[in-house]
Amino acid sequence: MLTLDKVYHAAFVLKNVIRSTDLIYAPKINRDAEVYLKTENLQNTGSFKLRGAYYKISQLSEEEKQKGVIACSAGNHAQGVALAAQRSGIPAIICIPDGAPISKVENTKSYGARVELVKGVYDDAYRRACELQQETGCTFIHPFDDPDVIAGQGTIGLELLDQLPDVDAVIVPVGGGGLIAGVAFAIKSLNPKCKVYGVQAAGAPGMVHALEAGKPDALERVSTFADGIAVKCPGALTYDLTSKYVDGVVTVTDDEIATAVLTLIEEQKLIAEGAGAVSVAAAMFNKIDIKGKKVICLISGGNIDVTILSRVITRGLVKAGRVADMIIELADKPGQLREIAAIIAEHGGNVIHVRHDHGGLDTDIVGCYLSIQMETRNHQHVEEIYNAISSAGYKIISSGKVM
Amino acid sequence: MLTLDKVYHAAFVLKNVIRSTDLIYAPKINRDAEVYLKTENLQNTGSFKLRGAYYKISQLSEEEKQKGVIACSAGNHAQGVALAAQRSGIPAIICIPDGAPISKVENTKSYGARVELVKGVYDDAYRRACELQQETGCTFIHPFDDPDVIAGQGTIGLELLDQLPDVDAVIVPVGGGGLIAGVAFAIKSLNPKCKVYGVQAAGAPGMVHALEAGKPDALERVSTFADGIAVKCPGALTYDLTSKYVDGVVTVTDDEIATAVLTLIEEQKLIAEGAGAVSVAAAMFNKIDIKGKKVICLISGGNIDVTILSRVITRGLVKAGRVADMIIELADKPGQLREIAAIIAEHGGNVIHVRHDHGGLDTDIVGCYLSIQMETRNHQHVEEIYNAISSAGYKIISSGKVM
Repeated sequence: MLTLDKVYHAAFVLKNVIRSTDLIYAPKINRDAEVYLKTENLQNTGSFKLRGAYYKISQLSEEEKQKGVIACSAGNHAQGVALAAQRSGIPAIICIPDGAPISKVENTKSYGARVELVKGVYDDAYRRACELQQETGCTFIHPFDDPDVIAGQGTIGLELLDQLPDVDAVIVPVGGGGLIAGVAFAIKSLNPKCKVYGVQAAGAPGMVHALEAGKPDALERVSTFADGIAVKCPGALTYDLTSKYVDGVVTVTDDEIATAVLTLIEEQKLIAEGAGAVSVAAAMFNKIDIKGKKVICLISGGNIDVTILSRVITRGLVKAGRVADMIIELADKPGQLREIAAIIAEHGGNVIHVRHDHGGLDTDIVGCYLSIQMETRNHQHVEEIYNAISSAGYKIISSGKVM
Repeated sequence: MLTLDKVYHAAFVLKNVIRSTDLIYAPKINRDAEVYLKTENLQNTGSFKLRGAYYKISQLSEEEKQKGVIACSAGNHAQGVALAAQRSGIPAIICIPDGAPISKVENTKSYGARVELVKGVYDDAYRRACELQQETGCTFIHPFDDPDVIAGQGTIGLELLDQLPDVDAVIVPVGGGGLIAGVAFAIKSLNPKCKVYGVQAAGAPGMVHALEAGKPDALERVSTFADGIAVKCPGALTYDLTSKYVDGVVTVTDDEIATAVLTLIEEQKLIAEGAGAVSVAAAMFNKIDIKGKKVICLISGGNIDVTILSRVITRGLVKAGRVADMIIELADKPGQLREIAAIIAEHGGNVIHVRHDHGGLDTDIVGCYLSIQMETRNHQHVEEIYNAISSAGYKIISSGKVM
């Protein structure tokens, strides 16, 4: 059973294992509110998961500890359990589906855990973890639906009230619900006037669905780049606590999440993973009424694969009109490339990529295509350049998105 | 004159304006040392510059304050002076060369400063700033060679000794030398046993050159992507303090800096600009003997343009063998693309870009090129895939770098 005593006890136990992460003022997230960021992306292992895992392990009997622990995860929970076990001096097995990014596998290994790469997806890895648990008699550490795990995550709630006692609202990412259950329980127990809101990816709204259905009920499929919260079904306990203590759960789109990730990079110099940035996306895009309020957005983690990060940045630049491209149809005669380059330069565009192709399947036999990618200032600037090129008599046959 | 009293006074004056930025343990920067990061990239305005600028302004007379201040900068100093003036309630003019990234101009404006975009480079903007200073009688805020500015930056030294009293060495980025002059002065005044090292970009070693020459002496040109420390000549005062209090100044290459930026993103979830990451690069690449020591790397700022960040990430991925490309010569007959795709898939490569070109100028008339870009695990993995394709009888005519 979850009690406030347990959350306080968890805070005591965690004292030398976790960092009390900084709360950072973020004036540019939403002009109409006073927004702060709780930076659990700067937590050891890059996410809050260490808190719950370490506290759970600390509550095992000596006999259980000797047998060790097992977990199944492709992400933050894997690293949290691995480091928690290492710090507790007990063995850990982590089952990871073999498609997981190599960096996550390497990090989990670096914390001393035995990693079992399992062919297939999460469900296959989960089945293998259950088998191994049976064989070895070790303890399965659930990623969210466990009172000790929830108490560990709830310690963040205590820190928030300590760091900003007069906070009006806290916004929390929601996947399985362990984080929000703990944080909401701690905050509402101490200051019932403080609002607690949850945020999910629009492509994985498991908790929203459960709250509508009145019970945890699995979604058929989930799809979002915020893989850390791509959970089909919340837990029984996390659902109960959320329905009791949380003031509302909203959703944000993948585009909104990507914009939040990019904004955190540019304005706050912080790397958040998609799941970690949904709280910021909700505040940026006014999914919750926070006008005039003191608000904390909890950034739950920063473990984003760099290749995905690179794509998020490119997408963000295109969406903001800071990178643009176009394909122009040319008559195949000299001087045209020079003229177009001159027009772009005159208007302050910075060309970063050019391709000049003759005779594709659908071009006139004497025609050719010029494909140009350039750095621009904003959408208006892009329009200005497009117009100048059109006015000079060229036909722009495609423009906009860059992959 | 710089005194320890002045540094303490600056700390007192700055209390409600700056954040005492977090010191974060960073176990993966150098295995043989205990490395911590002082996160001035998370400072208000994204760099330490606010400290010196605000303290300098606080020391002006009432009459001087009324006339306002002026500065010339394309970077962090611009934002530091702008916010410092806004918080002090006085007017500021900032001269910026017109090629500066739009984001820096917008940020400077957002702090309420009047921005003068000057056609040309830094020197042109500087000349215009001098003119405007003469016309208006306002005070010119030097970016580094000023005892009040140095005292403001020195407050970081006080914080470091407070946050990690038994630190053995502090590593500090060096451009004009204001930061290291202040930090070294404060630290050596209080704990002479603590070493203080400076780091410059190999393409802009102004302070190294001055120390060798025995006096400040301008370099003819500087070239590095770490634009925040691309300074041709240190100041008279910063040179004096550095030669007196600093234990050594080393250099790092642009590739080493880019690797440090990427490592900070992946391991620490922090965005540093090139100039801000040189200290980390020096620790990573053992430019300084820190074996067995407790070391603080000062990250001076995080204001990196996102387009440059995107390139740094790509370059880092290629250097780490995590993105690779190759051009393969094919005979123009069916089934070859399928076969190569199968080989790559079998070996766990993830194709992200394919181009298939017939008949370039230097190909056989019936031949064609296949250009493939893929995500890979590391250099060994890249080799493995290259070898498998070669063994299947294909000729790889180019491989490696991606732009």
